Amino acid sequence: MARERNYVSEAVMRRMPKYYRYLTDMEKAGIERVSSKELSQRMGLTASQIRQDFNCFGGFGQQGYGYNVSELRHEIHKILGLHKKHSIIIIGAGNIGQALANYTGFEKDGFLVKCLFDINPRLIGMSIRGKPIYDIDELEDYLKENQVHIAAICTPKEKAQEVAERLIKNGIKGIWNFAAVDIVVPNNNDVIVENVHLSDSLYTISFQMSGE
Amino acid sequence: MARERNYVSEAVMRRMPKYYRYLTDMEKAGIERVSSKELSQRMGLTASQIRQDFNCFGGFGQQGYGYNVSELRHEIHKILGLHKKHSIIIIGAGNIGQALANYTGFEKDGFLVKCLFDINPRLIGMSIRGKPIYDIDELEDYLKENQVHIAAICTPKEKAQEVAERLIKNGIKGIWNFAAVDIVVPNNNDVIVENVHLSDSLYTISFQMSGE
Repeated sequence: MARERNYVSEAVMRRMPKYYRYLTDMEKAGIERVSSKELSQRMGLTASQIRQDFNCFGGFGQQGYGYNVSELRHEIHKILGLHKKHSIIIIGAGNIGQALANYTGFEKDGFLVKCLFDINPRLIGMSIRGKPIYDIDELEDYLKENQVHIAAICTPKEKAQEVAERLIKNGIKGIWNFAAVDIVVPNNNDVIVENVHLSDSLYTISFQMSGE
Repeated sequence: MARERNYVSEAVMRRMPKYYRYLTDMEKAGIERVSSKELSQRMGLTASQIRQDFNCFGGFGQQGYGYNVSELRHEIHKILGLHKKHSIIIIGAGNIGQALANYTGFEKDGFLVKCLFDINPRLIGMSIRGKPIYDIDELEDYLKENQVHIAAICTPKEKAQEVAERLIKNGIKGIWNFAAVDIVVPNNNDVIVENVHLSDSLYTISFQMSGE
């Protein structure tokens, strides 16, 4: 059943993975039903915020009965596209690239790391948790021969934009950027870029600590 | 000179590290002055947004002359608290914990990783880039004897809240949480928690790709 998806704001989009996380933990804990009030208390949102968020997707559950946790989790699982398999490649087999390749937490939700690419001859030919590290020169050939949904950019920041352009030119539609620079994509492009700026996140801590 | 800091919204706070990043790159590129219009175009913001953001801190620069890049960077450096040294400990010496310990990018801004803690006997006693891995049982003693500003939680999610409570009880004021769970701190507490949910970030990519 395809749901009608209304306009979804950035803020609502960012809350969807959080709902999924809380519902997954609640399902594991054996909780069968939850009211928007209970869910709001757990998540630190208001009940009306939760109802508004869900209305973006046509709404879930019945007034007064609360939500069935497993069904709601299942709906959000689909909304997040997690019923599909996503293959991932990692560009840059340094600290962060290796940590992502080693991490198994995304696999249960269908995100499969296929391989890594690097320029360092000492790394090329090695593998991490069975994922080979290829020469970055083989990137274009690899993308022609393999379906890849998402590329994680874990290169030094000076290389990130150039790598992104090579990826986009070869059909990549999802970029997960860990380099300390904002990736710029053409406006008329349908490429999704998600920037993870770890230092920005760290600096907001020192900002708040220094404001005390 | 202490600046008057007005109320700073979450959104403004999150943009400050981004300003710092762009200004650092511009200073490196030898750019001396920038107008709010030029800065806005580089950063994908509006010029009036930038002026409003800076007004939260009393404003910088003179109307019509633009901003002196080095001076502006210096002011934001101070606002972010980067003129102070911050010592960091890492709880959990797994993939992410090791990647953070190996990463040198934060050090230039005064964030110094001192050591890691883990429960795994095979890791305890080893070191990563010269940073020792201690037994988690030594955490309280370490915190009594050493000044630590920020703790990065890189444990499995089941352990994260308990670890956070031990940290807070022993005086930690800044928590950088990488576990896939939201850390809950008492409302009346002055502890800063910054959650980095890597899977949330990945799932927003698949969300946007599945909505096409």
